[in-house]
Amino acid sequence: MNWLTVLGLVAGVCTTSAIIPQLYKAWRSKKVADLSPKMFFILTMGVGLWTVYGVLRDDLAIILTNGISFSLNATMLVLYFRYKTKN
Amino acid sequence: MNWLTVLGLVAGVCTTSAIIPQLYKAWRSKKVADLSPKMFFILTMGVGLWTVYGVLRDDLAIILTNGISFSLNATMLVLYFRYKTKN
Repeated sequence: MNWLTVLGLVAGVCTTSAIIPQLYKAWRSKKVADLSPKMFFILTMGVGLWTVYGVLRDDLAIILTNGISFSLNATMLVLYFRYKTKN
Repeated sequence: MNWLTVLGLVAGVCTTSAIIPQLYKAWRSKKVADLSPKMFFILTMGVGLWTVYGVLRDDLAIILTNGISFSLNATMLVLYFRYKTKN
């Protein structure tokens, strides 16, 4: 594995996992008023399209990173609408 | 331009522009308490690494999308720390 691949892997882990602190904060605080649901909706659509792109190009790295991002962003949307109605 | 390229472009525009509604909401409301700065910090690092990756692979699409994302996410971080201290 050359270091360029390592660079891509580290970048992919960062962009895929970045939403986890926001998911945790929303789950703990139950407060989402300052968040923009449009951001998570567009992100979910975008990484969904990237996942389809990866399937059509048979590229496992694109499928995995964006597939995980899709589920994390979709979860964030669910938390947003659940807590928004509660507050 | 085949339609797979179009799919990639649309996915790229979505994931790059997704943060704009959150930037706008934070700028308008000046409220950021519910946001996780860690998310924007990790995202900024991740797309920064993707930009370096794109430069080393001489891939303009990766450079452009991630370079724009880098500046948008860095702007979000600046807004977060500016408004966080104010509230």
